[in-house]
Amino acid sequence: MNAAVPIAGNRFVIIGGASLVGSATAGELLDHGAAEVVLFDNFAFGSEDAIAHLRDNPRLRLVRGDVMRLPDLLRALEGAQGALLLAAHMTLSMDRDPWGGLDVNIRGVQNALEACRVNRVRKAVFASSNAVYGYGPNVSGELVEGTPFHTVGVPPAAVIYGATKIIGEALCRDYHRKHGLDTVVLRYCTVYGERQHYRATNALFIIETLDRVRRGERPIVLGDGSETKHFVYVGDLARANRMAFAADATDVAVNASGPRPITTLELVRLVTRLAGGGPEPEFIAEDRGRVRLTSGGAFRIAHEEAARTIGWRPEVDMEEGLRRLIAWRAGNEPRPAAG
Amino acid sequence: MNAAVPIAGNRFVIIGGASLVGSATAGELLDHGAAEVVLFDNFAFGSEDAIAHLRDNPRLRLVRGDVMRLPDLLRALEGAQGALLLAAHMTLSMDRDPWGGLDVNIRGVQNALEACRVNRVRKAVFASSNAVYGYGPNVSGELVEGTPFHTVGVPPAAVIYGATKIIGEALCRDYHRKHGLDTVVLRYCTVYGERQHYRATNALFIIETLDRVRRGERPIVLGDGSETKHFVYVGDLARANRMAFAADATDVAVNASGPRPITTLELVRLVTRLAGGGPEPEFIAEDRGRVRLTSGGAFRIAHEEAARTIGWRPEVDMEEGLRRLIAWRAGNEPRPAAG
Repeated sequence: MNAAVPIAGNRFVIIGGASLVGSATAGELLDHGAAEVVLFDNFAFGSEDAIAHLRDNPRLRLVRGDVMRLPDLLRALEGAQGALLLAAHMTLSMDRDPWGGLDVNIRGVQNALEACRVNRVRKAVFASSNAVYGYGPNVSGELVEGTPFHTVGVPPAAVIYGATKIIGEALCRDYHRKHGLDTVVLRYCTVYGERQHYRATNALFIIETLDRVRRGERPIVLGDGSETKHFVYVGDLARANRMAFAADATDVAVNASGPRPITTLELVRLVTRLAGGGPEPEFIAEDRGRVRLTSGGAFRIAHEEAARTIGWRPEVDMEEGLRRLIAWRAGNEPRPAAG
Repeated sequence: MNAAVPIAGNRFVIIGGASLVGSATAGELLDHGAAEVVLFDNFAFGSEDAIAHLRDNPRLRLVRGDVMRLPDLLRALEGAQGALLLAAHMTLSMDRDPWGGLDVNIRGVQNALEACRVNRVRKAVFASSNAVYGYGPNVSGELVEGTPFHTVGVPPAAVIYGATKIIGEALCRDYHRKHGLDTVVLRYCTVYGERQHYRATNALFIIETLDRVRRGERPIVLGDGSETKHFVYVGDLARANRMAFAADATDVAVNASGPRPITTLELVRLVTRLAGGGPEPEFIAEDRGRVRLTSGGAFRIAHEEAARTIGWRPEVDMEEGLRRLIAWRAGNEPRPAAG
């Protein structure tokens, strides 16, 4: 049995495609000769802007549809060899709307996998998250794929979000086991890069820091700045998605993280420097108004298993990735999030 | 603020009430002077038999309704001071029907909590499970409330079941935080006792062993019989539910387990002895036909936190509990499960 789905000549559907990761992956798949890439989106979070640069490509097609409507997915996936499942609520919107979030993150995934089964799609790549390891005082050190889900002291919305990703992964395993659908689960860590959106707690921190520095305001660091973050550049993630389809791997779940973690203080200093300099950061004790995701100490999201299973390694470090983000943002006015 | 809801004079609704735990808890609440106990059930898993012994009590009322229909719950919870949330799919039915199982275990809980909020119910007690600690090689030793969720090597349906309970708990915390609903989460371990049903993998093992011994067949032990199980007697659990309402505790999650764990071999020998003797057990390597839940070594589900928060300790050990189960079963013919 060969679980590889070559990119060239095949048709892919990106569910939740009008997004940061969706648009980058569409470009990646088109660059590698995909016969067609369909971006399926309900535009609840997605935006026309995120995909404007792709609209002229004759092999790209936009389909308005909703993951909560199985018939939409059944039609969109006709004739597809690969499906990338991105559509999801993240922690912030899960906090605002747990009803919609649980629908999309669970029933939406079931609908997508069912539509893959019915249409005999060869492979589904599911966007999971390092949120499956949880947060809180017990999360530190090397986070490998066998790390359990820690929830002590974690805000409910973040627990719910992580648990929905665990369920999505288990549904992938269940469809593989019961129906032979090939699946690769990629546990994304926080994504940043060109066409950055405003929906993820941690990615938002980069944009907020950049905006403050550009306005000449002091960037804000919570606590002493020693808290770890581990990001991944969107272009690296697009490549991981492509390689997940093209690799022979199936029924696996692997981390997709950037070259190395960074502390919040290092991040603020790096953004400040790349933005051309700015005032010293201000250290504040806490930010009461927002769901905050903290860990117990320094950690690193290990990506060695991804190298073993799909041959992927991150290539863009934060200095280079932030440089690209800042260059892109210089030509784009801030827009508040719809989601 | 006092989160205690005295039993005497108050009205309680047991959602998923026509069940092993539901009927036992109804009896417990009625015995302690509840003004009314409503058993809400759709009879998908529940049965008239489970509650037949209660039907003559004028303070008991049966309401046919479905947790997937919010209006059913809104009506049933009118005027209630307490709600016990039992309705759930367990691992075996989650494997057979992940669509129905995810609906009931997630949206059903949301609907129940929402109906509590609208009706100003004072306290909700949510039936969670030791499944929130997962299974597999890393689950051993003392399982305390902060133990994370282990999923490596665990069957998808068991992962999904455990994750739905984690989500249910987080929804309780969310309703407490956002709406002030008092909640106590009890993490039940496998329940056994009179009016035992056929739905839970581990509880089923007791009944199957008993049935084999009574037929003069050799009881079956998987592996070498050293595997740990930790059960709780249904009467102890009914008392835990009552004490969760009556205690001042809120926004807590605690284990509810029997006095001590048991190995499968000890269990088989105990059941055989209490049934009046029988042939020696047969040791088989594995049971391919069924979802099996294993742990990595000896474990104990700690119940000390329940003593601290709601004053509850288990009282009935397995010898006494099994004696009661066997006496009850002697007067009841085996019936296969509907669920």
